[in-house]
Amino acid sequence: MDPIRIGLLGCGTVGSSTVRLLAAQADDLAARVGAPLRVTRVAVRDTTRDRGLPDDVVLTDDAMSVATAADVDLVVELVGGLDPAGALVEAALAAHKPVVTANKALVADRGAKLHAAADAAGVDLFYEAAVAGAIPIVRPLRASLAGDRVSRVVGILNGTTNYILTRMTDEGADFDAVLADAQALGYAEADPSADVDGHDAAAKAAILAGIAFDTDVPDDAVFREGIRGVTATDIEVARRLGYVVKLLGIAQEVDGEVAVRVHPTFLPLDHPLASVDGSFNAVYVEADAAGELMFQGRGAGGDPTASAVVGDIVEAARHLVRGTAGPGVSRHRNLPVRPIERLRTQYYVLLDVDDAPGVLARIADTFGEHGVSIAQVLQEGDAGHAQLVLVTHRALEADLRATVDALDATPGVRAVSSVMRVESETSPGGDSEARR
Amino acid sequence: MDPIRIGLLGCGTVGSSTVRLLAAQADDLAARVGAPLRVTRVAVRDTTRDRGLPDDVVLTDDAMSVATAADVDLVVELVGGLDPAGALVEAALAAHKPVVTANKALVADRGAKLHAAADAAGVDLFYEAAVAGAIPIVRPLRASLAGDRVSRVVGILNGTTNYILTRMTDEGADFDAVLADAQALGYAEADPSADVDGHDAAAKAAILAGIAFDTDVPDDAVFREGIRGVTATDIEVARRLGYVVKLLGIAQEVDGEVAVRVHPTFLPLDHPLASVDGSFNAVYVEADAAGELMFQGRGAGGDPTASAVVGDIVEAARHLVRGTAGPGVSRHRNLPVRPIERLRTQYYVLLDVDDAPGVLARIADTFGEHGVSIAQVLQEGDAGHAQLVLVTHRALEADLRATVDALDATPGVRAVSSVMRVESETSPGGDSEARR
Repeated sequence: MDPIRIGLLGCGTVGSSTVRLLAAQADDLAARVGAPLRVTRVAVRDTTRDRGLPDDVVLTDDAMSVATAADVDLVVELVGGLDPAGALVEAALAAHKPVVTANKALVADRGAKLHAAADAAGVDLFYEAAVAGAIPIVRPLRASLAGDRVSRVVGILNGTTNYILTRMTDEGADFDAVLADAQALGYAEADPSADVDGHDAAAKAAILAGIAFDTDVPDDAVFREGIRGVTATDIEVARRLGYVVKLLGIAQEVDGEVAVRVHPTFLPLDHPLASVDGSFNAVYVEADAAGELMFQGRGAGGDPTASAVVGDIVEAARHLVRGTAGPGVSRHRNLPVRPIERLRTQYYVLLDVDDAPGVLARIADTFGEHGVSIAQVLQEGDAGHAQLVLVTHRALEADLRATVDALDATPGVRAVSSVMRVESETSPGGDSEARR
Repeated sequence: MDPIRIGLLGCGTVGSSTVRLLAAQADDLAARVGAPLRVTRVAVRDTTRDRGLPDDVVLTDDAMSVATAADVDLVVELVGGLDPAGALVEAALAAHKPVVTANKALVADRGAKLHAAADAAGVDLFYEAAVAGAIPIVRPLRASLAGDRVSRVVGILNGTTNYILTRMTDEGADFDAVLADAQALGYAEADPSADVDGHDAAAKAAILAGIAFDTDVPDDAVFREGIRGVTATDIEVARRLGYVVKLLGIAQEVDGEVAVRVHPTFLPLDHPLASVDGSFNAVYVEADAAGELMFQGRGAGGDPTASAVVGDIVEAARHLVRGTAGPGVSRHRNLPVRPIERLRTQYYVLLDVDDAPGVLARIADTFGEHGVSIAQVLQEGDAGHAQLVLVTHRALEADLRATVDALDATPGVRAVSSVMRVESETSPGGDSEARR
């Protein structure tokens, strides 16, 4: 068989691992695909650096020439970011070359356009590595659960923030201290915003929501809140109430709409995601017939990401050998996106209050006046000053926000120190606005 | 588009759920497949019972007529067992109809023959539902990890035994009492052998091993030991040493051979599988590049199994619409199967001994003489009589067996009460015989 010729755009950590994996597994891969896989062209910014590539690989800094080369059958995009990656992927698809990418930002931002281009060209566009690294989640949602109805996807989608929150939990430490240490150890970037402000997780949540609900979810439709505001006190209160604090990406279908959000969350300790610690990622799926499923593994790193990239390469290459392509991503439902103001969840609220007669009653009234009912109260304090912890029943985000505004103006409330959402057991119709 | 016409063999719990799911999701499925899916013929033993099928479905007790009907495009086999299911699947494949089956016994026993028949006919043979019910594990191993090298697959593959062991653990109860209760509650069969003696888990382990290692693994090559011999004492000792007892299916590659086994196992409490309780199933995978992955969910039940069946139907139907078929199962490695005698694992040994001078020394000598070194000892007892718990370092099964034979004849040893394997952290080359 003629080899399948691969053009690689970008050759950093993941690219190098991909090249190594393709070489180490060459015989197995050829047997699985029905043809050998050969990297023929690699585009990098700096062509002078030695990357240990085979001698017959053409190294160039002209990425577009690789994306459209006549002697490239399949393009692997590992450049990252929106530009020029987007133009490169579009050019490859337009040239009828299947594309494998690990670029979550690109898929989240321009997925609709790229899917349409792939469908028009009749070629594959695969991106298993873009979400949760080595964990097979895109393919199971696309294929294995294609006959089921997914109602909810909840994921720990960012290893850096999970590492930071795990250390804050284990050590009782503050965010700033753990972040600084994580940066020193190389677990967090010098500019940590993509991770700690939830951008990375939001892009992945948008991609998962799109597949789970057959709907285009623009990544700016994802409600996003990072972990900078999480305090050691929040984590300690969570522990005492039976929760752990995790940064979750949550995509759900509610009354024919899709809601997608990323925020730090009180998660019950007996939830399957609660024990996913350190830099691990995990995705929990609820489907009507399948019930609860969980997928867990390494969410980042050269080798784990390359494992997912090569899995996609193998499937796309098999299709090339057979002159076919996999099914495109279906967008046949295209549900409207529900803004978070119209979502119902439980909330944890931490108040700094005067420990004086009537204060608790006034606070309870404030919740009640806004239609938010209280499930749990915990008060601690001394000498006229107290911390009041409240956990609400399910309430509309809009109502909770109005409650918080009113609490700020309630006599006896010194400060609303924290507000965090609580992920609770779902029940049929439990997310519905109609139950308000 | 013309509908894809489905012939259903068997319409019990899973079949009824499958029909219901196909109807409930009809519009979505048609959009995903590119053609409507319609159940046209159903074969059942008793055609007089009302199954709530649509009026235009042809109900018959002649399963072969459905498997080969000219107006059936795709066959779903839910009859179970080897005969006549095997002949029906073969006939359908010979008639160039893709087959979706949930029949683990059939795939484990005759997988090689059926894969060859599917390849020869150029049609799909899918069986995601045969292993771990709703959990997508066959497709991830076949496709997502196709570019990686899997080294080990460890699964909780049988819900009934996991339910029994979980209750024994939670209640400190004995096997017989929990089994009787599980039978009364309908969680265990009147004849529980398929579950408690490990036959069901062994068939699933054989299937997983075949896919993970591209090798035909006959199910009688799987070492099998059930949970009838697990005592409340074993579980209590395990707890005190930091383990939980689980019935595991373990498939691993060792020195270019494949070893597959099912047995009750001491599993460290911090292993991801240790917290998978009750009737849940889970599969833990170690791969060279991806690292550790875990998949968890419902392993049985009508709806979860039907979810997997319909997922397979959707993929096979998509292929029919496009006039193609998925890649067959690769058997290009076909590694030899290593018998358990040549495997190295850790062991837990429980001895009933005289609490007398020299006994412990004699026992230690007996282990040493057979090349088995001891990692941990725990002795308890009173008035001349003691229970001695030993955990070994990794040792060859053959050596451990010789040790146990010798212990039976060692003065001061009243009885070898229990021997169980311990699943420990793997390390590079850790399973290799060469390290002996």
